[in-house]
Amino acid sequence: MTKNNSRSKLTIFALGGLDEIGKNMYVVRYGDDIVVIDSGLMFPEEEMLGIDVVIPDVTYLVENQDKVRGILLTHGHEDHIGGLPYILKQLNVPIFGTKLTMGLVEHKLREAHLLNQTKRVLVNNRSEIKLGSIKATFFRTNHSIPDSVGVCLETPEGNVVHTGDFKFDMTPVNGKEADIHKMAEIGQKGVLCLLSDSTNAERPGFTGSEREVGEAIENLFRKSKQRVIVATFASNIHRIQQVVDATCKYNRKLAVIGRSMVNVVNIGMELGYLHVPPDLLIDPDDINRLPAHKVTVMSTGSQGEPMSALTRMAHGSHRKIEILPGDTVILAATPIPGNEKAVARTVNQLFRVGADVFYSNNTQQGVHVSGHGSQEDLKLMLNLMKPQFFIPIHGEHRMLRAHGQLAESIGVPSENIFVCDNGDAVEISGGKARYGTKITTGNVLIDGLGVGDVGNIVLRDRKLLSQDGILVVVVTLSKNNGKVLSGPDIISRGFVYVRESEKLLEEANRIVTQTMEKCANERVSEWASLKTSIRDALGRYLYDQTRRRPMILPIIMEV
Amino acid sequence: MTKNNSRSKLTIFALGGLDEIGKNMYVVRYGDDIVVIDSGLMFPEEEMLGIDVVIPDVTYLVENQDKVRGILLTHGHEDHIGGLPYILKQLNVPIFGTKLTMGLVEHKLREAHLLNQTKRVLVNNRSEIKLGSIKATFFRTNHSIPDSVGVCLETPEGNVVHTGDFKFDMTPVNGKEADIHKMAEIGQKGVLCLLSDSTNAERPGFTGSEREVGEAIENLFRKSKQRVIVATFASNIHRIQQVVDATCKYNRKLAVIGRSMVNVVNIGMELGYLHVPPDLLIDPDDINRLPAHKVTVMSTGSQGEPMSALTRMAHGSHRKIEILPGDTVILAATPIPGNEKAVARTVNQLFRVGADVFYSNNTQQGVHVSGHGSQEDLKLMLNLMKPQFFIPIHGEHRMLRAHGQLAESIGVPSENIFVCDNGDAVEISGGKARYGTKITTGNVLIDGLGVGDVGNIVLRDRKLLSQDGILVVVVTLSKNNGKVLSGPDIISRGFVYVRESEKLLEEANRIVTQTMEKCANERVSEWASLKTSIRDALGRYLYDQTRRRPMILPIIMEV
Repeated sequence: MTKNNSRSKLTIFALGGLDEIGKNMYVVRYGDDIVVIDSGLMFPEEEMLGIDVVIPDVTYLVENQDKVRGILLTHGHEDHIGGLPYILKQLNVPIFGTKLTMGLVEHKLREAHLLNQTKRVLVNNRSEIKLGSIKATFFRTNHSIPDSVGVCLETPEGNVVHTGDFKFDMTPVNGKEADIHKMAEIGQKGVLCLLSDSTNAERPGFTGSEREVGEAIENLFRKSKQRVIVATFASNIHRIQQVVDATCKYNRKLAVIGRSMVNVVNIGMELGYLHVPPDLLIDPDDINRLPAHKVTVMSTGSQGEPMSALTRMAHGSHRKIEILPGDTVILAATPIPGNEKAVARTVNQLFRVGADVFYSNNTQQGVHVSGHGSQEDLKLMLNLMKPQFFIPIHGEHRMLRAHGQLAESIGVPSENIFVCDNGDAVEISGGKARYGTKITTGNVLIDGLGVGDVGNIVLRDRKLLSQDGILVVVVTLSKNNGKVLSGPDIISRGFVYVRESEKLLEEANRIVTQTMEKCANERVSEWASLKTSIRDALGRYLYDQTRRRPMILPIIMEV
Repeated sequence: MTKNNSRSKLTIFALGGLDEIGKNMYVVRYGDDIVVIDSGLMFPEEEMLGIDVVIPDVTYLVENQDKVRGILLTHGHEDHIGGLPYILKQLNVPIFGTKLTMGLVEHKLREAHLLNQTKRVLVNNRSEIKLGSIKATFFRTNHSIPDSVGVCLETPEGNVVHTGDFKFDMTPVNGKEADIHKMAEIGQKGVLCLLSDSTNAERPGFTGSEREVGEAIENLFRKSKQRVIVATFASNIHRIQQVVDATCKYNRKLAVIGRSMVNVVNIGMELGYLHVPPDLLIDPDDINRLPAHKVTVMSTGSQGEPMSALTRMAHGSHRKIEILPGDTVILAATPIPGNEKAVARTVNQLFRVGADVFYSNNTQQGVHVSGHGSQEDLKLMLNLMKPQFFIPIHGEHRMLRAHGQLAESIGVPSENIFVCDNGDAVEISGGKARYGTKITTGNVLIDGLGVGDVGNIVLRDRKLLSQDGILVVVVTLSKNNGKVLSGPDIISRGFVYVRESEKLLEEANRIVTQTMEKCANERVSEWASLKTSIRDALGRYLYDQTRRRPMILPIIMEV
């Protein structure tokens, strides 16, 4: 068997993560060996009414289960590991990750009763993992969570590098710089194909160092005369560390609030990623026992999530802490697209209860920097790797396109740049790359316990119901002669107030009766067409009167 | 009667526009004379499912109709004039506005069949209007629509100034600078109370000149080798003028697409605010008859609105124009908060069809500047007016607060700054200001033809329905013995696919039957409690099985 026969080509594609932010899942296949990178979830788009989370459709992997050598995890963010509890139920394969990533994953798997059945392998930037004909090594990157890595997959066709999420932080909070030397070495040896993070590909310049945020936070601590409440992403251990440090420096105690924040702090401390002096932490119940200027509170809710700790504090509905006039509240985060209004609402409410609020809009010295590299970071990565082929990943189409242009600007020929959609397979063989057969993929919607049981029809109905509500029309007919025995009764939900619309509903009732009589005269005996007639006549009347189109649900009972 | 008796105090409040963006409506009352400034609408918040627009509750004005001397309009934006067609139905009072503003208003009133019954008075920056004991004069401001004015109300208690929306544009596109001298004069005479635009109070520096956008647009025209498609706010006549100018300069023809854009261009040309050389405009039907490099298209859709011209073009579903690879598309606007995702989706789709897309994220030289003054503009206004009392208006609470701080920074004592909510009445009498009795106000929701008939219960139902759908449970009982004659039938909409959930629904059916039998045994004869039992039992079972809470609607028929 030669390397270039049809079985042994190299195929690279995404099951999630392209033209979207979230549910990252990339697949590299060489012959009969499949390696998966990441397994994320995505939060639902606005139009996915009632949906909790979205994961990739992994049909391809399930069908090729015997070939899947493992899932490599680049870091512990939800959009990279959040799909595991669902996906490992369909696919029992080993997972590989660094210590902190694995700590966060294990917590998830324990909750999903998947911990024992899942083979877990710890890796670090010196590991070499054999995955069939593919060898995986790892290089450390800087990102908004510690222990993030990029992956180099050595395949018989050449090396494939996946950066994970990254930026270059020259003064990282934990002193661990990115493995620039190792990246240079990988680049030196030759990179056949680079997959690189495009999240900030539209942003000029370099992304700032996390340390800048620490300075901004410390300045606010210095000026504060009362409690300081900091809300940030639960997983940003670097930032949490800087809040811990500022708390120490200004002789305060620290209370941690919000389930996910408590969880990350515990895992971070346990695994040695977060250094908290003894006696610094206090129980939230003890906040009110200390003078205000002795207390720091760290909480979730930087995205204005309605049920989060910060939102409840702002509305005075948190059980343990109430915000008092003069408290300092720092939102050390920018809104994720789509959350702008929720964040603004929380900020308004915090001002209203008298807090001094510092957030991205009103604070000159940044209380947030991104964890993703800007254009200059991305060009540095491209120059280190000097790839033959380039696939921009992690991001909406416009970001992938912008990243493609950056690659061109540093000398990657435009025909070697593949701006893909999920499922687009790039096949590389004999040093040539081309698009192969498209792989089936898509969104699997999770609503409660249901995985994939909500599809387009259900969503369309929810959308309809959400706009103008529903009118249920019930009639009971006689089996013998088709005469109306009871009804029509019309019940409305989400359409109009019944009390204020009595006339409208009376007239609606008359129209249904009329329609049924007409159908009876025309000897319409099919229920389906009777229902359609009712729906049409009533729909027309209601639209005419109200310019609304509620869902109309005729129900005919026969006794 | 002396001036300081209880009837003749000066009262200032908002019926809309505070702690929100939109539905601006401010009221100044002296004795028995009420003057209203603006009459805007607001687009619904996300949670206002199915609502089209929101207007202020004007109960106060309706109750005091005989005292309302008129509505003064500062400019022609929807958030300042959009409420008129609804409000003038409840309130027949004269309206006052500049030529362009009135042109836009008249178009609305004609559509609403209110044109003839409404007394309309044209004003300009030299007008003096007697409104009972109040005299109104106007000063020209710069804003993203021409013919914008601020208002000075001379009352026996002192002068009240309302800025309208404004910035200071030192190089305005139409050559009409703001009336800085007149503002200085007003300030010189003494301003008792200033109401000033807070939209950009969190933004440092000065807001750029509209002319900068013209330069950016011209640069893009120069580079374009095919069609140029510019999307912007329909009402931004300055920007439209600059697109017209660039079109002339580069020997193109201009097609205007989108109902609201066509309307504004017509009104703008007719009233002399938009200067378009003869033969420049072409019919959209003729776009394809000209070579690509001879065509400019101006369209609506800069906010990613699903039904707008630009969105339809991006998706290839516009009847008259298809975007071709290499076309230049300029989104000369930034997303209004809440529209970020929709705009991003349109941009992605435009890239996908091969357009060169220029928009705020990827374009260094700005293709948009705000029409609202930043902190330095606002301080300049404050310094020109040197008000004794200050009420920041137009904006969310956080912006009003920020504006309050700016006022403090230029020397207004903090106790003279009133950061208000809608309905908070500031009463000024004898040179002293204090909060008076709160005025009733609020949101009136408009859904189709219904004004105010959708309230909290209907919205709550829509919310519920949108999350997990509805299950309708129908049973027919015998009047004689209460026996089940037909059913229970369960119909689901927006909950689960029936085909994939047969077992679940069968079991649901069994539970309803069981519950009814139990109730029969316990001689529950009240339908209300029977329904509650069904709802409880079924709800519990479904939540247990699916972690969803659909609306459950039991219907019992009796024959």
